[in-house]
Amino acid sequence: MPYFDAASSAPLHPVARQALLAALDEGWADPARLYREGRRARLLLDAAREAAAEAVGCRPDELTFTSSGTRAVHSGISGALAGRRRVGRHLVVSAVEHSSVLHAAATHEAQGGTFAEVPVDRAGAVSAAVYGEALREDTALACLQSANHEVGTEQPVAEVAELCRASGVPLMVDAAQSLGWGPVPTGWSLLAASAHKWGGPSGVGLLAVRKGVRFAPQGPADERESGRAAGFENIPAVVAAAASLRAVRAEAAAESVRLRALVDLIRARVPELVPDVEVVGDPVRRLPHLVTFSCLYVDGETLLHELDRAEFSVSSGSSCTSSTLTPSHVLRAMGVLSEGNVRVSLPAGTTAEDVDRFLRVLPGVVSEVREKLGAPVSVAPSPAAATSLVVDSLGKRCPIPVIELAKVIGEVPVGGTVTVLSDDEAARLDIPAWCAMREQEYVGEEPADRGSAYVVRRLS
Amino acid sequence: MPYFDAASSAPLHPVARQALLAALDEGWADPARLYREGRRARLLLDAAREAAAEAVGCRPDELTFTSSGTRAVHSGISGALAGRRRVGRHLVVSAVEHSSVLHAAATHEAQGGTFAEVPVDRAGAVSAAVYGEALREDTALACLQSANHEVGTEQPVAEVAELCRASGVPLMVDAAQSLGWGPVPTGWSLLAASAHKWGGPSGVGLLAVRKGVRFAPQGPADERESGRAAGFENIPAVVAAAASLRAVRAEAAAESVRLRALVDLIRARVPELVPDVEVVGDPVRRLPHLVTFSCLYVDGETLLHELDRAEFSVSSGSSCTSSTLTPSHVLRAMGVLSEGNVRVSLPAGTTAEDVDRFLRVLPGVVSEVREKLGAPVSVAPSPAAATSLVVDSLGKRCPIPVIELAKVIGEVPVGGTVTVLSDDEAARLDIPAWCAMREQEYVGEEPADRGSAYVVRRLS
Repeated sequence: MPYFDAASSAPLHPVARQALLAALDEGWADPARLYREGRRARLLLDAAREAAAEAVGCRPDELTFTSSGTRAVHSGISGALAGRRRVGRHLVVSAVEHSSVLHAAATHEAQGGTFAEVPVDRAGAVSAAVYGEALREDTALACLQSANHEVGTEQPVAEVAELCRASGVPLMVDAAQSLGWGPVPTGWSLLAASAHKWGGPSGVGLLAVRKGVRFAPQGPADERESGRAAGFENIPAVVAAAASLRAVRAEAAAESVRLRALVDLIRARVPELVPDVEVVGDPVRRLPHLVTFSCLYVDGETLLHELDRAEFSVSSGSSCTSSTLTPSHVLRAMGVLSEGNVRVSLPAGTTAEDVDRFLRVLPGVVSEVREKLGAPVSVAPSPAAATSLVVDSLGKRCPIPVIELAKVIGEVPVGGTVTVLSDDEAARLDIPAWCAMREQEYVGEEPADRGSAYVVRRLS
Repeated sequence: MPYFDAASSAPLHPVARQALLAALDEGWADPARLYREGRRARLLLDAAREAAAEAVGCRPDELTFTSSGTRAVHSGISGALAGRRRVGRHLVVSAVEHSSVLHAAATHEAQGGTFAEVPVDRAGAVSAAVYGEALREDTALACLQSANHEVGTEQPVAEVAELCRASGVPLMVDAAQSLGWGPVPTGWSLLAASAHKWGGPSGVGLLAVRKGVRFAPQGPADERESGRAAGFENIPAVVAAAASLRAVRAEAAAESVRLRALVDLIRARVPELVPDVEVVGDPVRRLPHLVTFSCLYVDGETLLHELDRAEFSVSSGSSCTSSTLTPSHVLRAMGVLSEGNVRVSLPAGTTAEDVDRFLRVLPGVVSEVREKLGAPVSVAPSPAAATSLVVDSLGKRCPIPVIELAKVIGEVPVGGTVTVLSDDEAARLDIPAWCAMREQEYVGEEPADRGSAYVVRRLS
């Protein structure tokens, strides 16, 4: 039963499990107390901080344990913004940050601040030059992920850090997806990460704040963790997080080469095995273990369900999955297809056999889903072609509007147009993406009584 | 090595350990995902919520798991205040709430709100009538602990809840110290608790919000836990928390009777064995396992250190302990002695032998500490008595000012005064408390060049 969703949460690393067990008996007391149980807890906490700080590349007194990566991001952003409030209230983020960053930015805006999203290219990367242009006199903080969680693309952190340094703006790096693979390039001012992403336990995030960075923790005062993470310390989990970070780092060099080759195989074979597929994200500057592709004429939820029945656990940035009704903001920012989206993120130890079996299973699963939805196999021109056609897809959800577009495009002559009426948010992203893949012209979007009218001109 | 500080953190209950281990292998995936590992995690989370809700006495959909009791308190208060912002911005708390409540109140005040502290009697209890008078038209929220964490006194929650209901004010009960012993009396609107206080793991708090209570979660949006607790769910710990809550509840009836008797023994024997001791807190309406007393002429840190050497782990609300420089706000609000303060809180399973040994060890430890500090053994009148004396205790820390006062009181005639100059914050609390214990008259406090002048008249 191969689990291919390490980017959501990695199975507990054996070292994490072992360290957690050992620390359960030693680390339950209050480390602020003077008696032996408290001193023992304090020793464990201090040792874990030293080990984690070394892996992060910071001083132990710069590192705080939070209760999750999300909390690390929220506290890091709010503390840095408050610490530099006199400079200004402007925040810069990339358009493809994790939702915890974007939600913190939205909260900042709701409280009277401003923020700018730096766009990305079709591979999902910001341009350092464009990022640098977004920095202003009143920019209090800039945020950039080390690598994207949905498509794996690495960001130019070192270059952006240098531009931030030159502008005197602290840079916070969300390293949640990459920290297990290696340290973040130097130059960051704040860093956030999450233990369960590298095989550590749930309940532990890391927040590092470099000495000299102005930082004012928000929320009610609490003396623990330098005032940066309220609540009783979760020492057994912290010990397990630090121990497993060291363990995965020791294995990272060899494992990243191995998984990189498996991902290269998926990247190369999926477009050969499955028609109408777009593999997204940077093919080279990327996380070793993660690849994302989108399948035309397929809805994400059915695809996940069928892959689950075939015993593969993957995730999707499509809009048609149970947890969300809008397509992934990452795919949207990249301008790539979101329908039938599949993210494969291999946990350490994934075997070549599992990947082979995935590649054997995938084509049949995709074509079954397409068949059920009545997706076009090939586009045959209709004998009695009209100059333009209108397709009413109102009330229909992704991928139906694109399927209906694909079905009728052959019925108009070359130069004619198809207008798709749709009130599904995903259509705004997927119809232009389909046009790019099919080399048809996307004319544009017009408001309609309900939803929007998307106009496509047949070119071939 | 008897550990007598369960009120800080209880050792992990065997059921918690067992449940945590089992859930480590089943509960690491994202419960929002559709694949089997996600569904399995979701089942565990749902079952834990059902079990915990039953113990709390609420519906599962009213209960949220947070990352700590402190977080539950912070989120509960900020969410309830924001939800009722149109009613007003007034908050009512008791003067002896946990610091997490008082810090949240201070943050509310810093953001433009107001709050009132309801005073307590010398036993540490609020009067329901006085609490009711503090409720105003614009009161958005009232907070009252179920029982005090430092002295064990139970609060009149049911009566206060009834008054709150009549005024239309939601009541938030901090049940951190009592939830393991039984459900909170009905009538509350919000309830907060902390798993590691009942023998559950670190990293889990409970926040219950009754249906119909206006509640607006603060901070960046996060879809997990009904939007009330940001961050990836810590399912193994949540499972262990729920399982151990059921387990300690099953043992609570018998264990509370047993520990109540041991605490009664301590309450009775300590004043017989140790001179100049004040046992504080309500002797009857109290937590079963907790007792606090204060020893004149003793500094808290040395006492804790000596008890630790004798293998007893206890805590102290004295000012002279490493983690704090001001005396406990609880003891201060009660108007009782804070110097030489010892809190004994027995974990489940504490043996009568351990308590007996504590009672054998304590008198010697206290008298040794007093001897080192040169504390008075008895007060003998001096032959050449002056009408008034000034004692300069500036720069000296608790309990030295009280010791110096006790040493010279015999040197003034009955009716004469001793003025103690002190810049130690604890003196403001401890000199009046000493006067009450010694039946001398506390005349009052006057400002001085440095610190304050505390005037005491000899009555006997």
